[in-house]
Amino acid sequence: MNNDLYAQINPPHRLLMGPGPINADPRVLRAMACQLIGQYDPAMTEYMNQTMALYRQLFRTENRWTMLVDGTSRAGIEAILLSAIRPGDRVLVPVFGRFGHLLCEIARRCRADVHTIEVPWGEVFTPDKIEYAIQRLRPRALLTVQGDTSTTMLQPLAELGDICRRHDVLFYTDATASFGGNALETDAWGLDAVSAGLQKCLGGPSGSAPITLSPKMEAAIRRRRCVEQGIRTAEHRDGEEEMIYSNYFDLGMVMDYWGPERLNHHTEATSMLFAARECARVMLEEGLDKGIARHALHGEALVAGLEGMGLRIYGDKQHKMNNVTGVVIPEGIQGEQIRHCLLNDFAIEIGTSFGPLQGKIWRIGTMGYNARKDCVMQTLSALEAVLNRHGFRTVQGAALQAAWDRYDASAGVTR
Amino acid sequence: MNNDLYAQINPPHRLLMGPGPINADPRVLRAMACQLIGQYDPAMTEYMNQTMALYRQLFRTENRWTMLVDGTSRAGIEAILLSAIRPGDRVLVPVFGRFGHLLCEIARRCRADVHTIEVPWGEVFTPDKIEYAIQRLRPRALLTVQGDTSTTMLQPLAELGDICRRHDVLFYTDATASFGGNALETDAWGLDAVSAGLQKCLGGPSGSAPITLSPKMEAAIRRRRCVEQGIRTAEHRDGEEEMIYSNYFDLGMVMDYWGPERLNHHTEATSMLFAARECARVMLEEGLDKGIARHALHGEALVAGLEGMGLRIYGDKQHKMNNVTGVVIPEGIQGEQIRHCLLNDFAIEIGTSFGPLQGKIWRIGTMGYNARKDCVMQTLSALEAVLNRHGFRTVQGAALQAAWDRYDASAGVTR
Repeated sequence: MNNDLYAQINPPHRLLMGPGPINADPRVLRAMACQLIGQYDPAMTEYMNQTMALYRQLFRTENRWTMLVDGTSRAGIEAILLSAIRPGDRVLVPVFGRFGHLLCEIARRCRADVHTIEVPWGEVFTPDKIEYAIQRLRPRALLTVQGDTSTTMLQPLAELGDICRRHDVLFYTDATASFGGNALETDAWGLDAVSAGLQKCLGGPSGSAPITLSPKMEAAIRRRRCVEQGIRTAEHRDGEEEMIYSNYFDLGMVMDYWGPERLNHHTEATSMLFAARECARVMLEEGLDKGIARHALHGEALVAGLEGMGLRIYGDKQHKMNNVTGVVIPEGIQGEQIRHCLLNDFAIEIGTSFGPLQGKIWRIGTMGYNARKDCVMQTLSALEAVLNRHGFRTVQGAALQAAWDRYDASAGVTR
Repeated sequence: MNNDLYAQINPPHRLLMGPGPINADPRVLRAMACQLIGQYDPAMTEYMNQTMALYRQLFRTENRWTMLVDGTSRAGIEAILLSAIRPGDRVLVPVFGRFGHLLCEIARRCRADVHTIEVPWGEVFTPDKIEYAIQRLRPRALLTVQGDTSTTMLQPLAELGDICRRHDVLFYTDATASFGGNALETDAWGLDAVSAGLQKCLGGPSGSAPITLSPKMEAAIRRRRCVEQGIRTAEHRDGEEEMIYSNYFDLGMVMDYWGPERLNHHTEATSMLFAARECARVMLEEGLDKGIARHALHGEALVAGLEGMGLRIYGDKQHKMNNVTGVVIPEGIQGEQIRHCLLNDFAIEIGTSFGPLQGKIWRIGTMGYNARKDCVMQTLSALEAVLNRHGFRTVQGAALQAAWDRYDASAGVTR
């Protein structure tokens, strides 16, 4: 690390195997190094249109309004919630980890009437439980987290769209942590809005939030339309409902900027758009299904290796995300000591935990550019060495053999 | 331009001489191409601290809370307004162009009681006029634009701090367009909050908003403190005033994330932070005063050249920004035709205009990496050629000679 204030950026080499951000795909970094173009340059608006088309494929949707919010994944969440939820609207949030609490927190800032249902951390909800709560509470919107990195759990969403449609509920999911590494079918699952980020399975930096909005969600947002005074003309008319209490996150304005009218709003963050487009391009070059299978494979190999080391996996293994694994910190081991030793002596970062899980589990990611065999093998071998040094005994070779076995099984090799 | 959806990013070469974004400094692009590090990596938190220190120098402030908002410059404006203005607070906005209207628009979204004073476009306010309005309206905050790119005017701010202090008014300015190319003295001028962006004189991409907050502004924000449920502990206490109606733009939370507690909020946009730090480093390497003088020089040379071409400069020349020049489109010339020809045949972009000035002026920027002699000379020579082709007569050689004369005068050369 260079402490000189005037030195050039020169970050140390790290293998980022935490819950994200992870190392960016070098192709994404190169895309960001491209020179800028003007925001209304035909080449720029063409890149914006292409970005919409590429993300429609990743979101598995026909939604016209598939675009970027210029901010981190949290900005994408807030843009959707502020635009969709009117003050006083009742919303239901099934909370199964920290990011469910975040949805509540943001909904509260929208002045929503927030109701929650909870399951213990490490579990997910059955559709019945969610439908029962919807019947009881009659919310306007169901706000879900698909993959909550705090617990590594993946909430099944496939059956919730029908439930929401039956009860006329807007259906949103925060797919920040899961997107690109686990199945997500926006249209088939009846989602009205999804938000994501680049810094997890997409292999890019934090700072741009891809979102998609269904026609139903678009209509809800259009009813709150406002056109900025500085650019409005006689043809512009405001919507019949209460305005959105943010300009930056007013998705009606963001649509008008990404749409054919190209009404000036923010100045699109060009380099981040280049990054977002390249993330999508790289993922589609591999093929979305193949990419998800790759995340499943490396997640399973990591789990096999960790169990081979005698470690216990946290939570309901049937419902964990492909791309993040919670590992119970063994009795007598100081979790932070292990993390620091891994970082300082191997330049490998694994994740700590929040809230009730703090000090109880590590979180290891295998996602995006780092959903690779070499990353898994290096992490397992370094972790075993560090644990051994701190007094945790393992059977020599067992961890890596187990991971190899998982890889070989997938390659159809018998050993 | 490449229309292939699956092709790599390959933007056409452009010389961006509009009101911003402009071409990024290649060093900033290289900084963004650096590999990522974890958000709590000691190297990352050190870069965050360095970024604070570097921007304190650029803002000419001792303010502790000098940091980045992860979004475009508009996000920086909204974060300050949403955090500072409580619903019902009275605010005063002196409007002298489009971005004054934007401040009104955002303040309205904060549910403020918004009052404006106006001068004709192309002019600025005298301190008296602003003090009179403050005395009459007794606002809680004065929201100003330092440089309004829509009119190219630069509002003098030096005397407003004393006025605000006398009347106990919070003093904010939006320095997006002016920052780094025109003097700004946060502490000496008594500013309580300033926001900026990278895509103008700083020579970076849009997508990160440097801001600074005075201790008085910090105190106002702290009174509205909220700690997120997912991460709050027994020691955390909320403020006594109404919460901030945004989580992403809650600057209390952003301070807790940039401060020693490092309370998790958004995941810092690492690549944009690298860009922001490099923008500041490059500017301080040159020296802030020298950089401002450079902006003045190239702005004046451009003006000399345009006048030498027989074109008229828009607005009050005594109060224009160094870095943007409004040019009155001559009688009988179609402004957009000229812009398209410049872009298509010379790859040079100059700006159009908004609202009442649409079709009446072009805006030409000389800022950041493009505040250079070669950029000015190429733009003048291309513009003259294009104007000639469209029937506007000029005296051969006069434009470029005038620009050269201005440069030679500054170099102390007599010709």
